Amino acid sequence: MSLKKKVSMAVVRRLPRYYRYLADLLKLDITRISSKELSMRMGITASQIRQDLNCFGGFGQQGYGYNVEFLYNEIGNIMGLNNRYQTIIIGSGHMGKALANYENFEKRGFKLVGIFDINPEVVGGSIKDIQIYHIDTLEEYVKTERVDIAILSVPYEQTPLVADRVARLGIKGLWNFSPMDLKLPYGDIVIENVHLSDGLMVLGYNMNQKMLSSKKTGD
Amino acid sequence: MSLKKKVSMAVVRRLPRYYRYLADLLKLDITRISSKELSMRMGITASQIRQDLNCFGGFGQQGYGYNVEFLYNEIGNIMGLNNRYQTIIIGSGHMGKALANYENFEKRGFKLVGIFDINPEVVGGSIKDIQIYHIDTLEEYVKTERVDIAILSVPYEQTPLVADRVARLGIKGLWNFSPMDLKLPYGDIVIENVHLSDGLMVLGYNMNQKMLSSKKTGD
Repeated sequence: MSLKKKVSMAVVRRLPRYYRYLADLLKLDITRISSKELSMRMGITASQIRQDLNCFGGFGQQGYGYNVEFLYNEIGNIMGLNNRYQTIIIGSGHMGKALANYENFEKRGFKLVGIFDINPEVVGGSIKDIQIYHIDTLEEYVKTERVDIAILSVPYEQTPLVADRVARLGIKGLWNFSPMDLKLPYGDIVIENVHLSDGLMVLGYNMNQKMLSSKKTGD
Repeated sequence: MSLKKKVSMAVVRRLPRYYRYLADLLKLDITRISSKELSMRMGITASQIRQDLNCFGGFGQQGYGYNVEFLYNEIGNIMGLNNRYQTIIIGSGHMGKALANYENFEKRGFKLVGIFDINPEVVGGSIKDIQIYHIDTLEEYVKTERVDIAILSVPYEQTPLVADRVARLGIKGLWNFSPMDLKLPYGDIVIENVHLSDGLMVLGYNMNQKMLSSKKTGD
């Protein structure tokens, strides 16, 4: 499905959340849901839900609500999950290892096909049956295997060089866990920078607000 | 600083981003910035920036812009980062280990004070000088040490029980990396669920849009 007008990233960032909630509904054998019910489950207003989904053509029917499976599949399609993106991890340190072991990626349609590292002690080994190759064989690997996404978890100093190498290979997506934001347009590549501590800061905000309001009410 | 009206979570979720960008400016010795310049750096509209910051009282001055250090400190205060939240990690598996080694948390004002696990093979050891204790000693530990936040990275089945235990101890914040969403109000605790694969799905969306548009234009 191609979109006529550019959808705001705020809406796009809510899509995975819809997708997760719809997956939960499917597990519970719920086949249809109103925007009101979905709104209560997700803690977003029903009008926000309708507005968000209208960006992609609607999907709801007056008086019926949403068909859960249809909406789930459509949102999956919009996010390209049926492309079965083939993914590699570069850097098998702590974070790389944690990501290789994270079971949800496969479930969401991202297939881990290889892991690359520079450390001779780990090269030749494997994580969950996924082989660890030497980073110097990356160019060769990409010649014979389709790689759509590279997940980067390398040290700060190595980030720009590795990102550049990835982009030159024509890999289309880069999920960057390195502590350095990649902002430059490396060729045609789409970059998503991960900021783990953002979530922790939001938690800090909510704790602080709770503390301040309980002080005020004298709790 | 106490807020008169409830700020929308969409705005709150942008605060860490402002904070990161301001930290970068400080590193570059930039002392003041207009909302227009900040807008160009961050890729958010200047009017959005003004609107966001107005939720907390403004901070900008007509014709001057923002004082970078002042704004940085204020946003830090709003997020309660000066509380120097004391943090523990429960579960020292792959993700727990990766989080214990993640250097940005300390930088953002979150101090890791202890790690807890059930595995006798790791208990007694340490990660980056942080001791690993047996989970059964958690209650005792909390009696003598202040713990503000527990980071949960335990298997699916153990998530609700461990979360319940954490809440009963009066720990105020829970950052949940387990693959199970915690939605129940466990006492007074503030919960932030992490969904790592959301970022990957957003990447998938952007790659898919790029592919569709290049197909259309015949690139």
